[in-house]
Amino acid sequence: MDLGMTDRVRPLVEAVRAMVRDEIAPLDREFHAEVGRHPSGDRFRHSARQIEILETLKARARDRGLWNFWLTDSTRGQGLTTVEYAYLAEEMGKVHIAAEVFNCNAPDTGNMEVFERYGPQWMKDRWLAPLLEGEIRSAYVMTEPDVASSDAAQLAFAARRDGDDYVLNGEKWWISGAGDPRCKVYILMACTDPQAPKHQRHTMFALDAETPGIEVLRPMQVFGQDDAPHGHMHLRFTDVRIPAESVILGEGRGFEVAQGRLGPGRIHHCMRAIGQAEKALEMICRRGLTREAFGKPLAELGGNFDRIADARMEIEMARLLCLKAAWMMDTAGVRAAQPWISKIKVVAPLMAGRVLDEAMQIHGAAGISQDFDLAHMWTHVRTLRFADGPDAVHRRQVARAELRKYRNG
Amino acid sequence: MDLGMTDRVRPLVEAVRAMVRDEIAPLDREFHAEVGRHPSGDRFRHSARQIEILETLKARARDRGLWNFWLTDSTRGQGLTTVEYAYLAEEMGKVHIAAEVFNCNAPDTGNMEVFERYGPQWMKDRWLAPLLEGEIRSAYVMTEPDVASSDAAQLAFAARRDGDDYVLNGEKWWISGAGDPRCKVYILMACTDPQAPKHQRHTMFALDAETPGIEVLRPMQVFGQDDAPHGHMHLRFTDVRIPAESVILGEGRGFEVAQGRLGPGRIHHCMRAIGQAEKALEMICRRGLTREAFGKPLAELGGNFDRIADARMEIEMARLLCLKAAWMMDTAGVRAAQPWISKIKVVAPLMAGRVLDEAMQIHGAAGISQDFDLAHMWTHVRTLRFADGPDAVHRRQVARAELRKYRNG
Amino acid sequence: MDLGMTDRVRPLVEAVRAMVRDEIAPLDREFHAEVGRHPSGDRFRHSARQIEILETLKARARDRGLWNFWLTDSTRGQGLTTVEYAYLAEEMGKVHIAAEVFNCNAPDTGNMEVFERYGPQWMKDRWLAPLLEGEIRSAYVMTEPDVASSDAAQLAFAARRDGDDYVLNGEKWWISGAGDPRCKVYILMACTDPQAPKHQRHTMFALDAETPGIEVLRPMQVFGQDDAPHGHMHLRFTDVRIPAESVILGEGRGFEVAQGRLGPGRIHHCMRAIGQAEKALEMICRRGLTREAFGKPLAELGGNFDRIADARMEIEMARLLCLKAAWMMDTAGVRAAQPWISKIKVVAPLMAGRVLDEAMQIHGAAGISQDFDLAHMWTHVRTLRFADGPDAVHRRQVARAELRKYRNG
Amino acid sequence: MDLGMTDRVRPLVEAVRAMVRDEIAPLDREFHAEVGRHPSGDRFRHSARQIEILETLKARARDRGLWNFWLTDSTRGQGLTTVEYAYLAEEMGKVHIAAEVFNCNAPDTGNMEVFERYGPQWMKDRWLAPLLEGEIRSAYVMTEPDVASSDAAQLAFAARRDGDDYVLNGEKWWISGAGDPRCKVYILMACTDPQAPKHQRHTMFALDAETPGIEVLRPMQVFGQDDAPHGHMHLRFTDVRIPAESVILGEGRGFEVAQGRLGPGRIHHCMRAIGQAEKALEMICRRGLTREAFGKPLAELGGNFDRIADARMEIEMARLLCLKAAWMMDTAGVRAAQPWISKIKVVAPLMAGRVLDEAMQIHGAAGISQDFDLAHMWTHVRTLRFADGPDAVHRRQVARAELRKYRNG
Repeated sequence: MDLGMTDRVRPLVEAVRAMVRDEIAPLDREFHAEVGRHPSGDRFRHSARQIEILETLKARARDRGLWNFWLTDSTRGQGLTTVEYAYLAEEMGKVHIAAEVFNCNAPDTGNMEVFERYGPQWMKDRWLAPLLEGEIRSAYVMTEPDVASSDAAQLAFAARRDGDDYVLNGEKWWISGAGDPRCKVYILMACTDPQAPKHQRHTMFALDAETPGIEVLRPMQVFGQDDAPHGHMHLRFTDVRIPAESVILGEGRGFEVAQGRLGPGRIHHCMRAIGQAEKALEMICRRGLTREAFGKPLAELGGNFDRIADARMEIEMARLLCLKAAWMMDTAGVRAAQPWISKIKVVAPLMAGRVLDEAMQIHGAAGISQDFDLAHMWTHVRTLRFADGPDAVHRRQVARAELRKYRNG
Repeated sequence: MDLGMTDRVRPLVEAVRAMVRDEIAPLDREFHAEVGRHPSGDRFRHSARQIEILETLKARARDRGLWNFWLTDSTRGQGLTTVEYAYLAEEMGKVHIAAEVFNCNAPDTGNMEVFERYGPQWMKDRWLAPLLEGEIRSAYVMTEPDVASSDAAQLAFAARRDGDDYVLNGEKWWISGAGDPRCKVYILMACTDPQAPKHQRHTMFALDAETPGIEVLRPMQVFGQDDAPHGHMHLRFTDVRIPAESVILGEGRGFEVAQGRLGPGRIHHCMRAIGQAEKALEMICRRGLTREAFGKPLAELGGNFDRIADARMEIEMARLLCLKAAWMMDTAGVRAAQPWISKIKVVAPLMAGRVLDEAMQIHGAAGISQDFDLAHMWTHVRTLRFADGPDAVHRRQVARAELRKYRNG
Repeated sequence: MDLGMTDRVRPLVEAVRAMVRDEIAPLDREFHAEVGRHPSGDRFRHSARQIEILETLKARARDRGLWNFWLTDSTRGQGLTTVEYAYLAEEMGKVHIAAEVFNCNAPDTGNMEVFERYGPQWMKDRWLAPLLEGEIRSAYVMTEPDVASSDAAQLAFAARRDGDDYVLNGEKWWISGAGDPRCKVYILMACTDPQAPKHQRHTMFALDAETPGIEVLRPMQVFGQDDAPHGHMHLRFTDVRIPAESVILGEGRGFEVAQGRLGPGRIHHCMRAIGQAEKALEMICRRGLTREAFGKPLAELGGNFDRIADARMEIEMARLLCLKAAWMMDTAGVRAAQPWISKIKVVAPLMAGRVLDEAMQIHGAAGISQDFDLAHMWTHVRTLRFADGPDAVHRRQVARAELRKYRNG
Repeated sequence: MDLGMTDRVRPLVEAVRAMVRDEIAPLDREFHAEVGRHPSGDRFRHSARQIEILETLKARARDRGLWNFWLTDSTRGQGLTTVEYAYLAEEMGKVHIAAEVFNCNAPDTGNMEVFERYGPQWMKDRWLAPLLEGEIRSAYVMTEPDVASSDAAQLAFAARRDGDDYVLNGEKWWISGAGDPRCKVYILMACTDPQAPKHQRHTMFALDAETPGIEVLRPMQVFGQDDAPHGHMHLRFTDVRIPAESVILGEGRGFEVAQGRLGPGRIHHCMRAIGQAEKALEMICRRGLTREAFGKPLAELGGNFDRIADARMEIEMARLLCLKAAWMMDTAGVRAAQPWISKIKVVAPLMAGRVLDEAMQIHGAAGISQDFDLAHMWTHVRTLRFADGPDAVHRRQVARAELRKYRNG
């Protein structure tokens, strides 16, 4: 169980770390300050400067071979393992726009994974190819407003077969990236047979984002912010007609695709969250050494030594757990890795949230202000406690797996 | 030690609760949706509709005698005790604009308290009178960007005596309400003698908010939000000249005024935070009973029973501690109540934050969105962990008071 | 809601505190060192010196009128309220044998309460009178080895009516004090009708402790200790025949008696636990000021300031909650006070356990050794998390009470 | 960084697990029941049956080649790595007497390590050889009653050079195993030069346990138990004269030896603690599935699902951290591994304590009684929070290492 950084990935990690620190981080603030400067005033359309920043960086990354790391176990990517990718993703987590620079950003990676593993050739040609080039973006359309997302079998958005087509009706929300005009394709889960056994009711589809009948109701806000230009959209589908060939893998196999997609995606989120925790701990230390009160550096006051030690211990443990989950994915497959993915999915966002909270506190009110990235990182990891399944459902999976060992004895 | 609701205050509590629930809450969302609709586009100026909402509600509250409850132990207010006020403040905490409707909002209450207790007659006439009428607003100008606010003796913003005037120079930030054009007066703490003993270096002043030389650099953001129209401003003072009579209580007595001001203010914040926790627990229960997963109401899944029980226990304890701190204020004075105020200042925001976090979690992603007030309430109680002294400094006070008992034996 | 120390009880509290500190504490260690020195070698029989210590102290307490404080709301006791008693019990909690010195020790107080409130005159004459005099001791016989004590309706120990008698069969354990030869009477709950509705299956009996057929199987150990001479016995009843007049209150009303008994008893345990937490915090401070490492007193190292502050805050909150539960008992009765009793029953032992754990830690390995009382106090409060209902069942009660408010709306 | 079970160690782990479960566990309870049955009544001398149990099992283990696993990186042992040993130690942690059966018990392993790495040949011949055979036992004599063990530089027990001898005077306590007559050798740290620089004041000695002048004052108790027959002794040394050749490594190099000794020892303790946590979680699951309340298995009530999930996640993370610390020992040496050892030394006992506490709670009062091993395991892991350095000193090390990264930039 080699969880270390391999010789193969080490130079990539160093290159990514350097590029994130030296080239991407300095532009991140400007990128966000540009939100809303598209001539239309639409916060979800990139300004010319935003496009320039992104595309310049992407071109550089690509030229250096720092591209599509996430496509593990495939001839199309770099042939990395998930363990190797973990070390790269951690670095990308430290700056908001970094993942996209390396074409490693959610939800596109998960969606590309779906096309790569389950999609017919025509989908690969039409959507996977330009996604791999970073030319278009995509969205993953699953969550619904009216049912608890912890129990996905309740999803009710309907796809009704009608001749050679399916007709889609219903609402979906928290559809990240769906407001971006570069987003050209949706991967969408719909209920095709409400009477079928629980895990055979749903089907996964791929469809053009500009299919008529799709309406953006509003951007969802996260702690009052719209996260533009990426954003999270509330969509309404009214009699949206798509051809039958839009089905991925087969009718009633939506859960199978979703599990295959969400496993790696969850780990990637966790890897990046660990990177954010590392950044927060560095900020705690720097602030603790330079800011003074009562004649001493803050680091030496109150329980700050303990907080620093606890943060370090928690980060190390979460990283190791994440690497183990990645190793399980690599060696035993998504299904066997499932309880491990659930574990890290609970652990990493909670841990990162705690470290970021301590970082905000030691920075005083500045820590929650626009002068530091801490509040933004915190809200991001807070959302991870819902994204791809809330804590409750992952804890439930872990507990059930544990009890199963003893049920018959 | 009577911590209960008195017969005198019970009908007031009932009237406030009813008005908050039936008249104020239904307008709160509209009030916030109006932000930025002033013809100038300035988010910190109230739109006509915002003024209409506020003034209509204020007039009603005043007509019903629901006004200025906070002025305890004084002939100008209702003559309530701090314990009695606690029950009222808790109700006001449940809706964002409620405290202002009853003229009980920070920072005006604390500022009025300063004028009432320490201000010369001319300040009472000029500023206290219209503040008590709700005709103007005020700001409290203390925090500085360059020093740890936990150790207020470090504050370096300078007031230099020059003939019959003082001349002010420096930056202040997190000045809540200072962007509101209705804000007519600042109470400001400045360093008048950096060489004096630690707690005699600073002086408190009152000055007209429109004195030349004051510049609003920017609104500070809280988790990405500007909290308009109230907001928190970053100000720069350049050779701001004010007459010597602007001094409150006496040169070098700034700390004395600050302590007298901050004691009650801290308790009021805590009271309102407890009201928010109560509201969050109610929302947990309602959601838990109505939303289902895996065929059961959420309340019956996982550890939700324990979470509800823990929330209830934590709220009750925090309320009792807050009432005891209030009772100490009433019976032993601000100075003797200080360690009690520090205790509740640590406890209440942490407790409310935990309950609100659980409430967000049980609401799924909706819980952090604009569809519920939870995220907004959470960010508010999070800021309380800095406002009026960070947790660290209050814990330090409590520990030192405890150890002092045993230092000589 | 007066939760303060009344003028009436203040001198009693001072007298009890002084006697505990000056007269009882100095003998507590000797008392325990005498365990096993009865000529028979039986650790559950008091040695002559143990009897001398106890009876001398009891006589003194009684002469001073420091006796039977617990019998609230009754002409037989001192007529104190439960709130008043709380302040006394807290002082008694600080030294192991103190409660018995004042005739205020469990399980006798609860058993006397049963006789006083529900017992027929013959039981009062035979057992209550000498118990009130401190001449005999008693046991409360409820818990069974084979069922989860969290759900008392499962209790299966059988009492079968047979003519004018009942015949008892089964096992009971954790019967505190039942090994003490001074223990003359058992109050015992048995199942008289397994088919009856859940809360009418059981009946409470009083019986002579020396009735034939009762066998002490073994003393139960608590963290390896037998808690002699008090102890906790595992008993077996084989065809134990008792007269029908042994029934308390009525057949099928066992639960009613148990609730009436356990309410006050739970509060008393919590009061004493709070006293132990106070003692632990004092020990933390004294040790923290006198022991040094790295050139500083321990109190100033690491997170010890925060630990001291947190302990102080937690103690105050638990005390207030306990006083409120006591006040509910006094003003609204046991049934209405039930959710409040459940709250403090969860909170107080957990809180005291945490403070004691910190106290052990700051004392180094000495803290868990025989050189300090901390380990003994810790194991005691740990058992309180089971005694009179485990945490789980009390949290369940609190959550259900909370949800009930919203079930129909 | 291979943290997995190697092919080499897997069969050993399986053999150890089977022997622990099938041969050692069934005799563990009898072994403890025999305490005090030596004809002398001395609880610290093994009864004939205890010796029979131990020696029979040891002989079997040795015959099977399950012996001295701990001696990593050495030709005398099995040549295992510390990572490999971790998997074995975890199994041994599950039953109290298991480690001794495989000659892998503290403090002998650490002491053998000292002889192996730093001892002159005569010590190897005289003590290491029979220790490796399991023929004698040893003690490690470091802790003192009068100084905070967190700051070992304060240790004051004196060794004064006198001609060709050293003369020892002072008290030491918590000397585990020193009451066992099989204990033939002490490794002892003494202050040889109080004026020297902080880490050069102390010297490590080896001496015969029966040297005149050594007195056992008393056995120390742990939560009221003497842990016989192993036990922890309080010793007094009065003019104990030992030859100068007793010095290990060199005068003033005591700290160097101590660090070399304590590093592996701390990891071994942690490995065994993880084994105990695993056992506790298994017991939680089994109890949770078989015991019922309110018509459901306990596992499905309240927050038990969450508790099981949290326990599983915490165990996995602690195990991975322990394995990483072991891997650092193997690849970078004790000194470089130091911060990693500190991390796991804080994490593992706290984690195991929490899981064991939950296990006790779900077992009801039985969980803290003699009917289960849980209370005994809990007290053991509680002592680990002091043994080989309290949590505070290890957290301090971790925090200082973290801050050091940023001190010069």
